[in-house]
Amino acid sequence: MELNERQRRIIAIVKESAPITGEQIAEKLDLTRATLRPDLAILTMAGFLEARPRVGYFYTGQTLSSLFSEQMQKIKVKDYLSFPAVVKESSSAYDAVCDMFKEDVGSLFVINGKGLLSGVLSRKDLLRTAIGSQDMTQVPVSVIMSRMPNITYCRNDDPVISVAELIIEKQVDAVPVVRDRNGGLEVIGRMTKTNITKAFVALAKGSIE
Amino acid sequence: MELNERQRRIIAIVKESAPITGEQIAEKLDLTRATLRPDLAILTMAGFLEARPRVGYFYTGQTLSSLFSEQMQKIKVKDYLSFPAVVKESSSAYDAVCDMFKEDVGSLFVINGKGLLSGVLSRKDLLRTAIGSQDMTQVPVSVIMSRMPNITYCRNDDPVISVAELIIEKQVDAVPVVRDRNGGLEVIGRMTKTNITKAFVALAKGSIE
Repeated sequence: MELNERQRRIIAIVKESAPITGEQIAEKLDLTRATLRPDLAILTMAGFLEARPRVGYFYTGQTLSSLFSEQMQKIKVKDYLSFPAVVKESSSAYDAVCDMFKEDVGSLFVINGKGLLSGVLSRKDLLRTAIGSQDMTQVPVSVIMSRMPNITYCRNDDPVISVAELIIEKQVDAVPVVRDRNGGLEVIGRMTKTNITKAFVALAKGSIE
Repeated sequence: MELNERQRRIIAIVKESAPITGEQIAEKLDLTRATLRPDLAILTMAGFLEARPRVGYFYTGQTLSSLFSEQMQKIKVKDYLSFPAVVKESSSAYDAVCDMFKEDVGSLFVINGKGLLSGVLSRKDLLRTAIGSQDMTQVPVSVIMSRMPNITYCRNDDPVISVAELIIEKQVDAVPVVRDRNGGLEVIGRMTKTNITKAFVALAKGSIE
């Protein structure tokens, strides 16, 4: 619903002077009450304004943006996650780079002997190691990964938008999608900036309702 | 504006059977015309349906998703771009990695002797070189970069959402923001998945109207 100029001005007036009657709004706009009636009806029905008998109009705080937020909360991780690529703690940095190319991912999740999440490895971690003086075939990933409990993760039912905020705040490229298992976390997926970008594109293309 | 179940069903009916009269819709829903009147008024005023006298209701194609798309088209690259990090064609891969860490970026743009865009260098390109057999201090970036004309770029006034689609389609991490200069392209910014994710978060937080 695209608001017209007059409807935007009405909202601005009500925001500033609520409660305010239809007559008072008409006066401020130098229009008759009758001219405003359809606009007020639309704004009320669409939820922007609330009309209380014998008191006047209130602003509900409902905006197009708040509608977006509401819709975005409904887009969940489980609808956009990718398959995770995992490596063992004992793998070498060299093997991890090879795995990254083989799996075509930018982050690997590291699992311990019980198959539970113990770390995250980014291209940046591996590039730092690569230009260092150590032999990459001799460095185990457990030495260069970010490790629990300093790992940001998410779950199937989290909204994609919360993961987007996490990724920005923690300055990471990807977060593992996990579920509880045996007192630890099992990796069941991967959420990256690519997945978030895809959700954004899908929203714009109208494939999410 | 959050549609209720009945309003959604009305839209579905009109989509399928337009033009259709209020009576016919009421009949399909097993309700009276009077019961439906407020819903039909709201759907018409909000722009979902169009009522033509003596013909019936039509579906306008206006949906919450199409509103999102409309709003998203208004978010431009110039509102979300980052400062670009550039290197010269003659720089070594080793120096490029150091620049990446110094500037804290995941992509570098390569410029030729005239200061114009000639290539793009990603962490992936550098990581591939790092595990190869060559000495990184001896490999110039011009050998390992993606080069013009195979580079995806964007401009200040492009919608962020178009860049998001480009990034997904071309499977790149970042695109340079350019403007024309001396028959070539001057790099004036950087758009990454991080910038797109930030735009997505801002949209959800209601800071874009």
